Amino acid sequence: MSDAVLQSYLENQLERITTALESLTPSAETLPAQLHEAMRYSLLAGGKRIRPVLLLAACEAVGGENEAALPIACALEMIHTYSLVHDDLPAMDNDDYRRGRLTNHKVYGEATAVLAGDALLTEAFIHLSDPARTAAIPPQTLLEVIHIMARCAGSMGMVGGQVVDMEAEGKEIDFATLEYIHTHKTGALLLASVKAGGLVGGADAEQLESLTRYGEAAGLAFQIADDILNVTGDKEELGKAVGSDEARGKATYPALLGVAEAKRRAIELRDLAISALEPLGEAAQPLRDIAHYIVNRSC
Amino acid sequence: MSDAVLQSYLENQLERITTALESLTPSAETLPAQLHEAMRYSLLAGGKRIRPVLLLAACEAVGGENEAALPIACALEMIHTYSLVHDDLPAMDNDDYRRGRLTNHKVYGEATAVLAGDALLTEAFIHLSDPARTAAIPPQTLLEVIHIMARCAGSMGMVGGQVVDMEAEGKEIDFATLEYIHTHKTGALLLASVKAGGLVGGADAEQLESLTRYGEAAGLAFQIADDILNVTGDKEELGKAVGSDEARGKATYPALLGVAEAKRRAIELRDLAISALEPLGEAAQPLRDIAHYIVNRSC
Repeated sequence: MSDAVLQSYLENQLERITTALESLTPSAETLPAQLHEAMRYSLLAGGKRIRPVLLLAACEAVGGENEAALPIACALEMIHTYSLVHDDLPAMDNDDYRRGRLTNHKVYGEATAVLAGDALLTEAFIHLSDPARTAAIPPQTLLEVIHIMARCAGSMGMVGGQVVDMEAEGKEIDFATLEYIHTHKTGALLLASVKAGGLVGGADAEQLESLTRYGEAAGLAFQIADDILNVTGDKEELGKAVGSDEARGKATYPALLGVAEAKRRAIELRDLAISALEPLGEAAQPLRDIAHYIVNRSC
Repeated sequence: MSDAVLQSYLENQLERITTALESLTPSAETLPAQLHEAMRYSLLAGGKRIRPVLLLAACEAVGGENEAALPIACALEMIHTYSLVHDDLPAMDNDDYRRGRLTNHKVYGEATAVLAGDALLTEAFIHLSDPARTAAIPPQTLLEVIHIMARCAGSMGMVGGQVVDMEAEGKEIDFATLEYIHTHKTGALLLASVKAGGLVGGADAEQLESLTRYGEAAGLAFQIADDILNVTGDKEELGKAVGSDEARGKATYPALLGVAEAKRRAIELRDLAISALEPLGEAAQPLRDIAHYIVNRSC
């Protein structure tokens, strides 16, 4: 795909996902109105939607019909959004801005932000198990998808990574800890995206293995690229202050390895991700292009 | 059942549930250790386990094998526990004690308490979809159970009730709002207990209808009884300060209707719950006894 074709592919997927999120999430008039408004505020705040995009592309890569995967992709974005709302809380990262807008608790107060996050996480599982949305997916497959998503989001996945990240703040940490944080805090849910997409698309064991290797490598590359951007990017691209990781004493790849070595790793991981897709042939082209896109943002 | 027989029934179920919770929840040595310790601290803090007890009894009431329902019952208790951990947070009810022990954030700090709650909620869905735990339940039934639990826990269930409760604090509220709070904040998950138990036990539509009517009435009776106990009980029974609802300007049945009328309602609802069980015959005896037990605590 040329850059222009990829851009139009991404824009098209983004629009489908946003439309689906709009219609799946209870309206701001549904009682309790303030809660639903707060949920929608963060869920519909824009963003690259990289997780649902990956999920749909993974479904496509194994020959699946990605219309069926759309509610699953939305559920994953709900889980991602809940994690951002809670991460931003005063007791956690205490961020005032996210994607260039005030964070949820700055607008709705801390209590509502906690509950809006809780409700978004729960809403994901409402949709994952909703017979009206998921009738095209065999029940056994759907259970596998739910299991993978929950595991990747839970105490040994995303939440676990967040805890270790928090514990590490302001401390000297070793490379193994940094890698644990990255593979768990962001990597786990990115991996869940491609695995879930593959399952919904009807992947066989070998295809799922390719997607898993892709997801692990691309997930880590994504986080390294994010770390680099936090040092070298501009505020508009980031939606938050440049250098905020360093100011907070956050462990990052550039801080531990230097920017040049971090870039080298990101590129190496991108290539690893792309080579994992070889058995999937032409249908995996969007996944390849996304790997390039992820890394090119920063390298 | 005589009181002594009921007591021994409840103790027996409590022990089964506690043992299952112990073994299902990641150990305090599993990384990240502090997170798992915090999850276990609140999950294994005792309590009446009324939700899982109801779930197992509902399964039994329709002739089901309640061994298969045990992991489902544990998942429900995880959802209940996460809601307590988040409710106690400084931004919410700001409680220092729960079940006579320091609350989660008083021991582990606010950030870990938020994340432990998140992880407990997610853990519930890990177990609900775990093929190693739920192989005895047909996939379609399991999806229905997941859907009911998520809906009852979400923005139009428990979390919704919590939001409205919070908004109402310190304000004059009408009876309709009070009933909304009670049927959502506590009622929804109690209803989920009996419905999920019924589904796992293989209930037909008519049996499920009986259980639903029981669950609605018993759930509300439970909350009214709790409100009454908060006025008339002792600290040991409550595990927290007597009169704390009033001190906080919480809307309660005794505050709105007086203690005597609140008691009358609780008894009326208990009888309604019991009469709903008529089609289920002898197998529903534990559910009847539990309805008595719920209301007798306070009336």
